Amino acid sequence: MAGIRKTGRLDLGLIAADRPCAAAGLFTRNRVKAPAVELSAARLRGGRAQAIIANSGNANTCVPDGRLHAEAATAAAARALGIRPALTLMSSTGVIGEPIAIDRLTAAVPELVSALRPDGLADFARAIMTTDTKMKLFTRAAGQGRNAFRLALAAKGAGMIMPNMATMLCYILTDAGLRSAALKKALAAATYGSLNALTIDGDTSTSDSLIMMASGVSAARPEESVRGMKLFQAALDDLLTETAAAIAADGEGATRWFRVTVSGAKTAVEADRVARRIANSPLVKTAFHAADPNWGRVMAAAGSAGVPIDPRRVSVRFEGEKNTVRVVDRGLLSAAYSEADARAVIGGTGFTVRVELGRGRASRSILTCDFSADYVRINADYRT
Amino acid sequence: MAGIRKTGRLDLGLIAADRPCAAAGLFTRNRVKAPAVELSAARLRGGRAQAIIANSGNANTCVPDGRLHAEAATAAAARALGIRPALTLMSSTGVIGEPIAIDRLTAAVPELVSALRPDGLADFARAIMTTDTKMKLFTRAAGQGRNAFRLALAAKGAGMIMPNMATMLCYILTDAGLRSAALKKALAAATYGSLNALTIDGDTSTSDSLIMMASGVSAARPEESVRGMKLFQAALDDLLTETAAAIAADGEGATRWFRVTVSGAKTAVEADRVARRIANSPLVKTAFHAADPNWGRVMAAAGSAGVPIDPRRVSVRFEGEKNTVRVVDRGLLSAAYSEADARAVIGGTGFTVRVELGRGRASRSILTCDFSADYVRINADYRT
Repeated sequence: MAGIRKTGRLDLGLIAADRPCAAAGLFTRNRVKAPAVELSAARLRGGRAQAIIANSGNANTCVPDGRLHAEAATAAAARALGIRPALTLMSSTGVIGEPIAIDRLTAAVPELVSALRPDGLADFARAIMTTDTKMKLFTRAAGQGRNAFRLALAAKGAGMIMPNMATMLCYILTDAGLRSAALKKALAAATYGSLNALTIDGDTSTSDSLIMMASGVSAARPEESVRGMKLFQAALDDLLTETAAAIAADGEGATRWFRVTVSGAKTAVEADRVARRIANSPLVKTAFHAADPNWGRVMAAAGSAGVPIDPRRVSVRFEGEKNTVRVVDRGLLSAAYSEADARAVIGGTGFTVRVELGRGRASRSILTCDFSADYVRINADYRT
Repeated sequence: MAGIRKTGRLDLGLIAADRPCAAAGLFTRNRVKAPAVELSAARLRGGRAQAIIANSGNANTCVPDGRLHAEAATAAAARALGIRPALTLMSSTGVIGEPIAIDRLTAAVPELVSALRPDGLADFARAIMTTDTKMKLFTRAAGQGRNAFRLALAAKGAGMIMPNMATMLCYILTDAGLRSAALKKALAAATYGSLNALTIDGDTSTSDSLIMMASGVSAARPEESVRGMKLFQAALDDLLTETAAAIAADGEGATRWFRVTVSGAKTAVEADRVARRIANSPLVKTAFHAADPNWGRVMAAAGSAGVPIDPRRVSVRFEGEKNTVRVVDRGLLSAAYSEADARAVIGGTGFTVRVELGRGRASRSILTCDFSADYVRINADYRT
């Protein structure tokens, strides 16, 4: 199903289905968008797609003829595949503002098509990696008998990650049969707590694209029953949660990932604001990098999130795999606080910083990672 | 005027005037506030102050008895100076959540008082430094004859810097005579374009305090004429602008500072949001650290600021001391762009990134600095 070709500075990947699939996508809400995003979003209004061509290394954004080049690339892919250009989507990620080598890209397409094979998704996932150190390829199988279906996901993303609707690049394929509208609804529900609850560095890309294609090759039709749709949604939620955690763990320069869970807020938006403020605080992230349970920075970040919290109602816990450390009780250092225990939790990975605001019943969890000198090195050297 | 004493982990400084002064202050808007901030803000409601005791190394925040200890410290200072505790202010900055060594602090006060001398402000400025590499002590003299007055300012701050009303710690003394209300108005006007237009890392401290004392020892009474108040305001603006630039240039790990000026916005709030988004973007800051004019990151940050900009109306310029580089014209790489020229500007310091939104007539300038691996090292090692 996926073809791969590397050409010059461009890494190219192609996903193609034998027949048109129901499809849906979520794209960056950055006001500055890659032409590939605009083109794909427009073509997905029809609810169907058959192929996706993706390149890393160049976002083809803020350049003259960006849209023309995206159209040329998809036209070349459609021609080589013998399908309609309107069913061909595109993703481009990488440097903004440098013209893309469109002639080399289109010249590479025929070979890309000839390399297509059913088990090629890992090659595709590798082709779209940039500063990722680990390939993101995840699968799920669910349902039984005629309701059995599979999900496969390929994604990339390690920096400029605070997706707003989707992550950098993420593709989900399923053999279940669903309509585009159901796919879109399921995606929106699944991303709220996964990709849209993820931040590496607080920067939102111009290329963020999440595209899902449902071939209907299996007999599974999740929409036909409430139970079927619940099963499908659960598998999708689970898949995207694993993906978001993998992206956080592989954040640029990251040595550990963690979750900031804010509860007791008046609204989910309020909880989101406080959780993101903490998750994006360079001071929290650098302290945790050093395994330093510097909870004062958590309190300072929470207090400056633009939410009128009352510190005297705020409690903080560090929750590790093995134990939970009470850190702040009603605004003050907890009598039960143990610096050694706190250090053991923060020195691990996958832990949770739980902040209870004492204002209401809404909550929000945000996934993130620590902030290291390597992040600076990676991003200071990215173009040079 | 300032007495200094270092004791254990605490660096202590004292400012005292011979007589009560008109005084005004601006304090952090972080919802989590140091007890010293709450105490000083409450005492300044009377519009008068005579002494300020300041310590660095410990913020005395989120700890039991924080307010009691702030009261004890100011009571000790007042007693030793023979003045009213209600006229004695306090600032505390440093680690949050560790109890302050109040006995050692109060024991150090008598010696601090005996060390007071009229030319001691430099010692005071040195005492409150934490990760600052340069002392921040600035002065202005303005007016002539009987209208002559002087301003002296001592400040600190190198990290957890995105002041909201004031910077970390900043004290301004003047021999002019003004009422507290006039001081406060002048401070608010002066900080809008200086300390409140400054971000090192987007983190707002719980200790931010800007306190101004006017002794009236000179004959100058700026409030008595429009021209006099203009002169005073201009001197104060100038003093705080120099201070903000010095704090940006001495940001933790910073190798260069720059200004992000957003114009053509519908409102100043909108311009502020876009300018802060760019100034706080780790990707913009790390690129500039490497002298890399990676303007695509500027566009991506501008597009994700939550303001509905139209990229096709956005222009970007890099303005150096010697030349201006046209970077983006109406959303696309400018035909006049020169990478070498852009690199020369970004490789310098004190340059301006100018972003024109093409939406209206409001503008805002934000001061900031680059983001280096040293920032991470400083903040990963701060407590350990």
